[in-house]
Amino acid sequence: MFIGASGKGMISFGSGQPDLPPPKEVFSCVATPEDFKYGQIAGQAYLRQALTKEFKGSTKDDFVITNGASEALDLVFRAIAKPKDNIILHTPYYYSYKPLVEMNNFTPLYVETHQGKIDVDDFEDKVHKAKAVLINSPSNPTGRIQDIKTLKIIEKTTKDLDIPLISDEVYKDMIYERENYMLSGNHVVTINSFSKTFAMCGARVGYIYSNDKSIVEKAIELKTHTSMNTNILAQKMAFYALKAPKSFVDSQVKVWKKRRDIIYNGMRGLGLDVWKPEGAFYILPKIKNPHDFVWDMFKKHKVITYLGEWFGADNRVRFSYALEVEKIEEGLKRVKKYLDRN
Amino acid sequence: MFIGASGKGMISFGSGQPDLPPPKEVFSCVATPEDFKYGQIAGQAYLRQALTKEFKGSTKDDFVITNGASEALDLVFRAIAKPKDNIILHTPYYYSYKPLVEMNNFTPLYVETHQGKIDVDDFEDKVHKAKAVLINSPSNPTGRIQDIKTLKIIEKTTKDLDIPLISDEVYKDMIYERENYMLSGNHVVTINSFSKTFAMCGARVGYIYSNDKSIVEKAIELKTHTSMNTNILAQKMAFYALKAPKSFVDSQVKVWKKRRDIIYNGMRGLGLDVWKPEGAFYILPKIKNPHDFVWDMFKKHKVITYLGEWFGADNRVRFSYALEVEKIEEGLKRVKKYLDRN
Repeated sequence: MFIGASGKGMISFGSGQPDLPPPKEVFSCVATPEDFKYGQIAGQAYLRQALTKEFKGSTKDDFVITNGASEALDLVFRAIAKPKDNIILHTPYYYSYKPLVEMNNFTPLYVETHQGKIDVDDFEDKVHKAKAVLINSPSNPTGRIQDIKTLKIIEKTTKDLDIPLISDEVYKDMIYERENYMLSGNHVVTINSFSKTFAMCGARVGYIYSNDKSIVEKAIELKTHTSMNTNILAQKMAFYALKAPKSFVDSQVKVWKKRRDIIYNGMRGLGLDVWKPEGAFYILPKIKNPHDFVWDMFKKHKVITYLGEWFGADNRVRFSYALEVEKIEEGLKRVKKYLDRN
Repeated sequence: MFIGASGKGMISFGSGQPDLPPPKEVFSCVATPEDFKYGQIAGQAYLRQALTKEFKGSTKDDFVITNGASEALDLVFRAIAKPKDNIILHTPYYYSYKPLVEMNNFTPLYVETHQGKIDVDDFEDKVHKAKAVLINSPSNPTGRIQDIKTLKIIEKTTKDLDIPLISDEVYKDMIYERENYMLSGNHVVTINSFSKTFAMCGARVGYIYSNDKSIVEKAIELKTHTSMNTNILAQKMAFYALKAPKSFVDSQVKVWKKRRDIIYNGMRGLGLDVWKPEGAFYILPKIKNPHDFVWDMFKKHKVITYLGEWFGADNRVRFSYALEVEKIEEGLKRVKKYLDRN
């Protein structure tokens, strides 16, 4: 990949991290000797307590603070499934899902989508064979959200079958089209992170939220051996980030929405087959010969994009629009140049 | 366990973390916006470069910075072995080894020790069946170091058989009896940490060092999906810790050695069957009815100790002597009270 690639004139639609700064509150946090002692494996109590305000009816013992959403998902997978178990993913999917499923020796079961929306019939056909279901709405890499009707069906079907429903909600605060519908219930395991909402990807603070004590306890037991507590100072910073006023998140969403409009309308103007992003900050146009496109855009046009095939979308290319409007516009001009020539 | 248990008059021989503070250099490190961006999965280049000074002939590309030694070991296990592979451990072992082996669906193969020293014949009998060998010298929970002669045999045998030799050296800087002998060679995978040497357990910064590109690359690939970069600010702090003068480590070792002498001589004075710790800060006396001992010491005598069976030593109890001399002495008095009554 091109992570970290830069240089004069390079425009990166690659990396999936906000270019905006974290809330100023996190910088008021300084290290004390206590931050260098082992902390609770589940996470510092003050942070878990603060999170209860975000989830109605939750208690601090329903949370496990992790090294980002990545570790949260790996722990949940290891806690609930055994080798050869089937895990349902919907395509296109976040590029770590498939390796995480495979490195734990599970089998991915792919549910079809149409324009990024889950095919409910296909889901209902396959869910009976699954040990767990993983939903990601808003989605990386499509930017699409699932219809509330669909989410309710998935919520009910998995509950009736007593199958854990893992909901990766790292983009929950970045929705343009409607309020978020958070999947809930005793069988739901929510994966979340401070990375996107508070623009603090490098700090690596995420969490698991579940009302199922057996899953929470198993995740803590595993984490005792695989990484112990999450960095204490980072947890303090996450706690301070939660103190940021609601306007912090609202103003960021406005920025993302404006950028979404520019890139979506720009790509439509170029005649690209593209689904309108409804959340997150990704767009996934269909592109002829995507390998040639990604390579040529990088080498000849100094534009970084990611191959759709890393996300289970072979004929598409992922653009992250986490960058300034001027760069988005310049990037689109370069895409036009490429398309005009090819 | 009793992690975090405290209260008036409680004396804890439990937790395996230094009570001494980290070097003052780490506090000169403040957060900047850059620390909240994704970093390199392998770890920040400046920290890996700084580590090359510790390992002769190494380059920065031989290192992966991890969330403590725990994650380092989990990544190495996942990188080199497959379900049902045999992994050699020597008993008594660090209490996470067995769960880490088992959660990855490997099979532990235990090599016998005598007074904490590896039985070389038993090792040579079993090594042929192993996919990898894990050595921990100085050892948690015994405090014992392996003889240089033994280490050289293990180093050569695994090299001849082309078996990865994983060396958990988190206590490498805490040896009282001789200079450390670091296992080395292209087949050696060193696991290390800033936690013990620099008293920064809660920051969770460890690393993998290996000259085998395939292992390093596989570990980075796995970490891309399981946790991404290690917290950036913590890596900066680890970098600053390396700037501490050598006298920082030397003066800590003096403190540990003094405490070792007090607890070892004290236990001998109580008539306990005990092996002399040569490194780290643990001692593992033989105790009749260890369950009763650990429970009574906690409830009646306000002393925290850990059951040897968590470490594969059924008839023993682990004491960490990472606490002040006065507390060690008071703790020993309470042990005497228990022994006098039972």
